Amino acid sequence: MNYTIRKGTPQDIEDAFRLIMELAVFEKGEHLVSNSPARMLEDGFGNNPVFEFFVAETTDEKPEIVGMALTYIRYSTWRGQCLYLEDLIVTEKYRQFGLGKMLLDTVVKRAVETNMAIVMWQVLDWNTPAINFYKKCGAELAPEWINCTVLPEKLASWQYGKF
Amino acid sequence: MNYTIRKGTPQDIEDAFRLIMELAVFEKGEHLVSNSPARMLEDGFGNNPVFEFFVAETTDEKPEIVGMALTYIRYSTWRGQCLYLEDLIVTEKYRQFGLGKMLLDTVVKRAVETNMAIVMWQVLDWNTPAINFYKKCGAELAPEWINCTVLPEKLASWQYGKF
Repeated sequence: MNYTIRKGTPQDIEDAFRLIMELAVFEKGEHLVSNSPARMLEDGFGNNPVFEFFVAETTDEKPEIVGMALTYIRYSTWRGQCLYLEDLIVTEKYRQFGLGKMLLDTVVKRAVETNMAIVMWQVLDWNTPAINFYKKCGAELAPEWINCTVLPEKLASWQYGKF
Repeated sequence: MNYTIRKGTPQDIEDAFRLIMELAVFEKGEHLVSNSPARMLEDGFGNNPVFEFFVAETTDEKPEIVGMALTYIRYSTWRGQCLYLEDLIVTEKYRQFGLGKMLLDTVVKRAVETNMAIVMWQVLDWNTPAINFYKKCGAELAPEWINCTVLPEKLASWQYGKF
């Protein structure tokens, strides 16, 4: 099978969202998804785009999007501008063909081209295949940082100035 | 003592950077800091600003910046636009007066005003006072996500397409 990796366009948003939902189910987080293709279209291609993405597409007669990587710029006060890889997804039946590495390579290349200090992402501690893949690629894994979140329901009822 | 919380300006960058270095020393990461006030000025107030920040300032005769919170927009494929709190810093001798909570409140208010889905940040797993503070504030802590990074030296020598 042959593939091409290219920049995602507005026409790819529906396919990208399908892959996002596939990953959300795998990560046991589908009940947390409040995003939609319509909102992604606005957030990625509206007046103030906040992300970009790449797709992996088959190059046969009926091209099909089978993987994607979504990135945006983060700001590290220590290092300056960094490229954050929010999602790296290859649909299940197209794994083991090297598409994940091709997508990750594209993201790294983009980071180098745009003078980003580092490339960062996160992985779940029980996702052993992904952890092994990232280690093999040469990424540093740092489990000492804990994610903190003020969830939507808490945002609305936030207690200001209580202590 | 009286304080005011206000938006950071270009004139505050030097003070903000002093606080960033104080936190980097506490987090044992000062050797990783490659950023500078000049770069922060460009990144925060140039053609394409990638962060904003708030400062806590004393309101006596010689106003002094004693705390700051730096934020930027992240993109969650599950939730859409989120406000990320990169640094929340109160200089050591001004702690225990509630300034951290005032800064965090300001960030939460800003997130609500700008329709951000959630507020997110990270804390080191050995920083017990900060962990307790965030839990008391109502944040959810999720230790199952591991940070992955391609460091600058690896970016430059990245092996493309090796598997």
